[in-house]
Amino acid sequence: MQQSPGVKVTASAPCSSANLGSGFDNLAIALDAFHDRITVVDHDGFSIIGDGVPSDPERNTAGLAALKLIDDFDLSRDLEIRIEKGVPKGLGLGSSGASAAAAVKALDEYFDLGLSQDEMISYAMIGEIASSGSPHPDNVSASISGGLVLVTRDGGLRASKINISGDYRFLIAIPDVITENKTRAARQMLPPSISLESYSRSIGRVASLIAGFMSGNRDLIRAGMNDDVVEPSRISLFPYYHKMKRMALANEAVGVAVSGAGPSILMVCDDMTEVSPIIEGTHAIFAEYGISGRIIEAKVSGGAYVEGSPVSD
Amino acid sequence: MQQSPGVKVTASAPCSSANLGSGFDNLAIALDAFHDRITVVDHDGFSIIGDGVPSDPERNTAGLAALKLIDDFDLSRDLEIRIEKGVPKGLGLGSSGASAAAAVKALDEYFDLGLSQDEMISYAMIGEIASSGSPHPDNVSASISGGLVLVTRDGGLRASKINISGDYRFLIAIPDVITENKTRAARQMLPPSISLESYSRSIGRVASLIAGFMSGNRDLIRAGMNDDVVEPSRISLFPYYHKMKRMALANEAVGVAVSGAGPSILMVCDDMTEVSPIIEGTHAIFAEYGISGRIIEAKVSGGAYVEGSPVSD
Repeated sequence: MQQSPGVKVTASAPCSSANLGSGFDNLAIALDAFHDRITVVDHDGFSIIGDGVPSDPERNTAGLAALKLIDDFDLSRDLEIRIEKGVPKGLGLGSSGASAAAAVKALDEYFDLGLSQDEMISYAMIGEIASSGSPHPDNVSASISGGLVLVTRDGGLRASKINISGDYRFLIAIPDVITENKTRAARQMLPPSISLESYSRSIGRVASLIAGFMSGNRDLIRAGMNDDVVEPSRISLFPYYHKMKRMALANEAVGVAVSGAGPSILMVCDDMTEVSPIIEGTHAIFAEYGISGRIIEAKVSGGAYVEGSPVSD
Repeated sequence: MQQSPGVKVTASAPCSSANLGSGFDNLAIALDAFHDRITVVDHDGFSIIGDGVPSDPERNTAGLAALKLIDDFDLSRDLEIRIEKGVPKGLGLGSSGASAAAAVKALDEYFDLGLSQDEMISYAMIGEIASSGSPHPDNVSASISGGLVLVTRDGGLRASKINISGDYRFLIAIPDVITENKTRAARQMLPPSISLESYSRSIGRVASLIAGFMSGNRDLIRAGMNDDVVEPSRISLFPYYHKMKRMALANEAVGVAVSGAGPSILMVCDDMTEVSPIIEGTHAIFAEYGISGRIIEAKVSGGAYVEGSPVSD
């Protein structure tokens, strides 16, 4: 399949926050704080360009996802993928997933493939191998589908949107730190096995999280945003976390958890939450730990979308 | 506190099915297939009577729960607890929990204590120590609250009812077997630790189960009623399970899981399910394994209740 010369497609995909405490590798939520944009244009040969992005497609989530899609559908490689990173990298905000999601969305439109959401997720998650070494589906599912997304594996990979009851805002505390290959490092910190007691407690927490979001019960959400399996194993990446969590909960945050593999911290807020003291408290805690950082407000985002209709360049 | 002579209170509590596949020690559903009845009457000294029930209150779930309640509230021990077992014992139907639930419900009424549901659950779960050696809260929560119940532990033990969307019937395949101290034995079969991969898969499954019941999505319920942690460790207690599950799913059961610690098997059905072939298939599979057994239809049950108002004997 070959597009007409000069055709250009741009897709945008939101950042996302995975895990939410107890939903390790299964849950993520798309947030409108940052977006990655991918533009696909016809070009003589395959090329990837973008600021601070590896130009080797195998080392690039958007590139790896694109190559797999191109190979599987026997598509032309005569195209350029332009990456505009809006999602900051290595901070637990699903940056690599957003690029992969936007790339697959843009290619689906460019080649008029008509892929289903689950097919797009399958390709985008392959892109994640370039970043973390494993094809985890949580962030890409949220970036593609939007909203709160549950990934199940029985009977094939499937992403299901979880309807959220109630109106939540999110605060994301983002430290200005860079950890090289953070996602890969964070995965290596994971415990190889989990005690039966922790297992059972986690089962109850994630059930509580889902029930809480679906029924609009803040107590259940709060109980669900706890984890003593994954978060403790990575605490060295976010030493300010416990203090920040206590502070935010004292100011009636609904729940607080590490965003993805960290080091950003996600705080769920509703109309009972005292947002201003949390923002002040977050800055104070970053300062106490000698870290500069910012705090961003966000809402739940829709999924990846193509900007306008395809137009000639 | 002392009741007037001759006062008699009878409470009834339904059987329940815990775990539902992925909800180990956190989820249970009350079913109207069987009930235990507990009658409390004034009496000279403390006494427990009932067919096939240990008369030593410390070895009896109803008795142990009753003694703890009596001690904590400094109540009179001059009473007789009469147990009518309707729930068959040792078959994974929450028999011990139903007795403890009915006992606490009856005592709450007898002494007019006005206990909250969570308080009743806390006492009833102590009764479970007599049966299994550990105070697990899942069955007693369902027997007391009714419906599908999630138990969370963060911020104190709390049972939350999960609203079920859709109309489900249940088939319970019950083999005629007796395993002495089955619950205790089943707990000893549990793996001491769980791999990270199984952990993550289980997290996704239980999230799927909750989302499925709350949204009325049979595919999510089916994906959630799977377990490769607890059920495989106990498979020797129910060797017919995998064959029965395949047969029921082929006949469009929504989902199939071991009921509690087994050996009964719970099948969730909706209007797509071919019930008659499942009933025939279940009998055939029991016969193939040389086991006699029955299959019972049930609906979701309400919780423990006091029969009528307290009346004079």
